[in-house]
Amino acid sequence: MSSRETYDELIKRIKEVSLISSCYAVLDYDKQCFMPPKGSPYRAAQASLLAGLAHEKFTDPKIGELLSQLEGSELTKDPESVEAVNIRETHRLYDKETKLPRELVEEISKVTSLAHHEWVQARKESNFKHFQPWLEKVVALSLKKAEAYGYTGEPYNALLDNYEPGATVDDIVTVFENLRRELVPLVAKIKEAPKKPDVTIIERTYKTDLQQIFGEMVAASLGFDFEAGRLDIAAHPFTNGLGPGDTRITTRYNPHRMNDALYGTMHETGHALYEMGIDREKYGGTPMGESISLGIHESQSRMWENQVGRSKEFWVYYLPVAKRIFREALKDVSLDDIYGAVNYVTPSYIRVEADEATYNLHILLRFELERELLKGNLKVADVPGAWNERFKKYFGIEVDKDANGCLQDVHWSSGYFGYFPTYTLGNLYSAMFFNQAKKEMPDMLEQFKQGNFLGLREWLREKIHKHGQRYRANDLCKKITGQTLSHQPLMAYMYKKYGEIYGI
Amino acid sequence: MSSRETYDELIKRIKEVSLISSCYAVLDYDKQCFMPPKGSPYRAAQASLLAGLAHEKFTDPKIGELLSQLEGSELTKDPESVEAVNIRETHRLYDKETKLPRELVEEISKVTSLAHHEWVQARKESNFKHFQPWLEKVVALSLKKAEAYGYTGEPYNALLDNYEPGATVDDIVTVFENLRRELVPLVAKIKEAPKKPDVTIIERTYKTDLQQIFGEMVAASLGFDFEAGRLDIAAHPFTNGLGPGDTRITTRYNPHRMNDALYGTMHETGHALYEMGIDREKYGGTPMGESISLGIHESQSRMWENQVGRSKEFWVYYLPVAKRIFREALKDVSLDDIYGAVNYVTPSYIRVEADEATYNLHILLRFELERELLKGNLKVADVPGAWNERFKKYFGIEVDKDANGCLQDVHWSSGYFGYFPTYTLGNLYSAMFFNQAKKEMPDMLEQFKQGNFLGLREWLREKIHKHGQRYRANDLCKKITGQTLSHQPLMAYMYKKYGEIYGI
Repeated sequence: MSSRETYDELIKRIKEVSLISSCYAVLDYDKQCFMPPKGSPYRAAQASLLAGLAHEKFTDPKIGELLSQLEGSELTKDPESVEAVNIRETHRLYDKETKLPRELVEEISKVTSLAHHEWVQARKESNFKHFQPWLEKVVALSLKKAEAYGYTGEPYNALLDNYEPGATVDDIVTVFENLRRELVPLVAKIKEAPKKPDVTIIERTYKTDLQQIFGEMVAASLGFDFEAGRLDIAAHPFTNGLGPGDTRITTRYNPHRMNDALYGTMHETGHALYEMGIDREKYGGTPMGESISLGIHESQSRMWENQVGRSKEFWVYYLPVAKRIFREALKDVSLDDIYGAVNYVTPSYIRVEADEATYNLHILLRFELERELLKGNLKVADVPGAWNERFKKYFGIEVDKDANGCLQDVHWSSGYFGYFPTYTLGNLYSAMFFNQAKKEMPDMLEQFKQGNFLGLREWLREKIHKHGQRYRANDLCKKITGQTLSHQPLMAYMYKKYGEIYGI
Repeated sequence: MSSRETYDELIKRIKEVSLISSCYAVLDYDKQCFMPPKGSPYRAAQASLLAGLAHEKFTDPKIGELLSQLEGSELTKDPESVEAVNIRETHRLYDKETKLPRELVEEISKVTSLAHHEWVQARKESNFKHFQPWLEKVVALSLKKAEAYGYTGEPYNALLDNYEPGATVDDIVTVFENLRRELVPLVAKIKEAPKKPDVTIIERTYKTDLQQIFGEMVAASLGFDFEAGRLDIAAHPFTNGLGPGDTRITTRYNPHRMNDALYGTMHETGHALYEMGIDREKYGGTPMGESISLGIHESQSRMWENQVGRSKEFWVYYLPVAKRIFREALKDVSLDDIYGAVNYVTPSYIRVEADEATYNLHILLRFELERELLKGNLKVADVPGAWNERFKKYFGIEVDKDANGCLQDVHWSSGYFGYFPTYTLGNLYSAMFFNQAKKEMPDMLEQFKQGNFLGLREWLREKIHKHGQRYRANDLCKKITGQTLSHQPLMAYMYKKYGEIYGI
């Protein structure tokens, strides 16, 4: 076979795997949004069948042979060519999937499924002791997994790479520390600020059906195509690309908090615009038709949620619109009022409820602890103590119970070590990209004031979405902004915004 | 291998096929209820992948070998044993699926997909000539299919057997003719009746969200388990068993016709109760965990829709409830008013909008024509003439255009020859079963008056649902009622009801 024929055979095979995985995605979406409770056990069997089929087809030794034959062929000469990217990224995944022994995969699946169950119970009782033996097992298995993958430096790198391909602790740890060094005093200063916005205006009554209308209107104006997607309700909101032409987002409504659904919807819309911006017509089912990393994905969701949705310019356009929908709740609310309220900052226990300023402190704390756990420098038994001590240092408040501390997140029970830092990477990239977009489109903020957000959407599509996995995250960042990952753009953005709102 | 081991291996394999098919069911449900329009092409690829996988696994020659080894083994001694039923019905399906050459299956799939498209166009233009060449192709291919299956008597038998296993034209044609002979004069008499119910009361304004609440309340009272199912909206309502613990029904709402959604929901609830009543814990994924035939399935939906939902006893309980929900629309409506309105009879062109009395005439006409088509006694070009002539004879009115005549139904374009008679079989069985239930539970109608329908649901579960495919439809009917298929119970029911309502 010629290299081209070998390549075509490879692509045919990975597209079939992608097609099977997309069926899984439909089943998973249905499970989270629609499935009646008693359908659960059978759905698990359906999902495991499809996951097994996809794994079996992807780890077929024939794929390994095709990849070996393509190694060093003329198709890989230009490393940015479609073919080279597809070969490189398929190779990376194939290596990862085939390096894990089947018994380890099955053990991880079994243990995390039980650990998850025990974690739910432990959190309910706020009893870390209940969860401790399970967390010990998950940490030990995660280490085994890291060993199976192999790594340079510390084991954490092998796991981080699952979510942020190519990234290592060394790449990010200095930036994260710089960020923390500036965030902690900023949050403390905000706490003591003389001027405070009135957050209660977003806690008035906002009828949920009207919230949905408003959310869909906003999502559509950002560029979400409702002919190629939908918005549903889910207990734990997420975005799911079920296939080309079908990207779905979810949110949840609280009639006494306008913030949750609006910014949740904008966040998921950001993820969805990335999925919709990928050229699936050309690249669907191959790495060129996939997003780069969780960090870059999060940069998209955070940009639309925060840099856009929490900007004054956004509200210049949308406050009058919102006043026509929420007549009673917003009738006495000014632009400064709403701008202040949606940017209200206060240290709190729960990450998923955190504001934009404290959010990254939640992440940094988790990143530090999970890295120490995997290094063996922190014992699982000592997690609550370490958590609470650090929490006090970063947030200035005492954790009252483990349910509000180290038991709050699902990630560890599910074995997702290395996942947390991608949230902060997203925030950092988001600020860097947004700065660059402003530079290249000097009237962008003026456009926002007129309800026009499609310029930014186009820019993101050109710079990021349409490239699929052509570049690694840090290369992409350098290519777009000319700079490497830095805490400064995000901090500059916060100093400016909170300076104005809090008079600090 | 012992027979038991051979059997276990067979069951393992067919359960896997069933699991794959259930994934297909989830994708199909999502397509019909939730999928955004642009998701359509990819969804077709997903569906065809899963259908192909299921077919490939089911027609694996190994399944044929296992079946041969089980032929005549001690497991088949008692023909009503679980094992004998599973072997018999798997054999039947395996033979059918392996008898069709691959090229024929692909050609049918290709041609019907195009024919469907052309039919949509032809119906829109009410232009039979546009559809004629396609219908000719579909008829020719259906004949080829019948030849490939093999048959005794006429080719129609081979196709009817796909929907009503074991049934032949000889079994039903006399009953159908008896039915027609009594229905035509009954409909004519009703048309001329001196007394007519006021149908406009169901055409008042019924808010769709209230219709949904009422429909869900009724479905729950019939025994639909909303922890194991849901009710959604679909353009063409249907029921789908996505798996054990997950049976979904759909309906559509018209704010100016209370009938459509209520009786649509009760109809689909009837189908769903059958699906929910099967013992999937024990038999899921095998023929013992499947329904018998479309005719028996339809007997369940029609019973709940008509014998129950259009009974006076139903409204004794539900009219006061409905009055509290639809205060304005129902405020001056009496029990006799509503009973008359939901039983209003009038000859009309469109089958899916037909009332209980004329419905079977629509079916008989189609059954007669499609049988003639396959026998070669009727040319496709002569279908409109034959249709219109017969329509005038049965309904007493002239067809104004083919869109209201022979172009109205989707079935023929999709190649579903042999499907139509199962609707009338359902109506006939439904009357027979309902009679028997009344005999065995003398206070059943009294129970209805108190809103208690679970006695009938239990009876159906015991007599029909829990037996899966243990019996063929006609054997089941004999077992339950002591009688063979007959038009008399259905006609007796109609004479009584319409006698009272129309004073005839």
